[in-house]
Amino acid sequence: MEKRDKGSSPMAMMGSGGDENEDVKTTMRTAETLLRLVPMALCVSALVVMLKNSQTNDFGSLSYSDLGAFRYLVNANGICAGYSLLSAVIVAMPRPSTMPRAWTFFLLDQVLTYVILTAGTVSTEVLYLASKGDTTITWSEACVSFGGFCHRALISTVITFAVVICYAVLSLLSSYNLFSKYDSPVLTYPGKGIEIATFHG
Amino acid sequence: MEKRDKGSSPMAMMGSGGDENEDVKTTMRTAETLLRLVPMALCVSALVVMLKNSQTNDFGSLSYSDLGAFRYLVNANGICAGYSLLSAVIVAMPRPSTMPRAWTFFLLDQVLTYVILTAGTVSTEVLYLASKGDTTITWSEACVSFGGFCHRALISTVITFAVVICYAVLSLLSSYNLFSKYDSPVLTYPGKGIEIATFHG
Repeated sequence: MEKRDKGSSPMAMMGSGGDENEDVKTTMRTAETLLRLVPMALCVSALVVMLKNSQTNDFGSLSYSDLGAFRYLVNANGICAGYSLLSAVIVAMPRPSTMPRAWTFFLLDQVLTYVILTAGTVSTEVLYLASKGDTTITWSEACVSFGGFCHRALISTVITFAVVICYAVLSLLSSYNLFSKYDSPVLTYPGKGIEIATFHG
Repeated sequence: MEKRDKGSSPMAMMGSGGDENEDVKTTMRTAETLLRLVPMALCVSALVVMLKNSQTNDFGSLSYSDLGAFRYLVNANGICAGYSLLSAVIVAMPRPSTMPRAWTFFLLDQVLTYVILTAGTVSTEVLYLASKGDTTITWSEACVSFGGFCHRALISTVITFAVVICYAVLSLLSSYNLFSKYDSPVLTYPGKGIEIATFHG
């Protein structure tokens, strides 16, 4: 149901409408670029905080790399920072949004949202276990001995969840950019025999 | 940019177009209803498998309720099963899709996808830790002692990820249902002064 019919839009037919429309589009493009640069900065922050996270004391030495969840958080934030920068650059270029491009953005934004959400979640779970412990399966409360380590890991995790929020919004935006190119399904009120097509024209 | 202009669709203008369109819509509604009933069945399976999961041996007794992650998995699957059933019933009713309804489905599908994804993720992390252990922070390999428990927890987690896949597809569907009601952004090829509006009419 892709919209194949092309024609002049009502806005374009108006004299100054084209310029106004151009302004709106430039503003939207700038907004989306910024919305992609913000998570990039956040990802790099979360990554750096976690990378520097290690603590040595009388109980021993603990580094982020000792825990699979935190290694995953670092990798996920690295990938997300790279994708955010790349996508920001592509969005910033004033090119028309084609169907394959809209699908690519939609799918990659969805995947990145899931990746960064799982990274934040596993880190939260490990932090929860490390601070509460689990007596039944004799897991100790590591945060009692390594308070500083847990505190910095918590900061990194909170920043990661800020990235999740940015990506949830970006997912919404790329869904809109993709699916608004498609026709709306025709609505029917059953039993009344009235068909109402919600289309623009 | 909501489409406010209503009019007859080209399909409705054709003689038999209305009936064909009605068939397509009925098929789509049936498909969506089934797509919502499948995760309901999966959620109930994952929930039952986890609820019955406890093991007692020489090392002690271990139940799903001893681990926060598995309690969360049970709750998430319960909520997801309830929502799936409710949404399947609503979708099955031949009512026209209004804007608030499309937004509600879109937002709730997104939230449920995130909830069920995090439930699967934390359970995976706990299973990973329970099978591998972590020597640095002296967490024991609980799965060595409680193999049966870990095996059933793994089954429940795998089923939960099947629910995640269903919900990722449902998210896509509800995004389409929502955003196809909106106008497509007008495209401009910069430097050429040609405006092409991808709208239907």
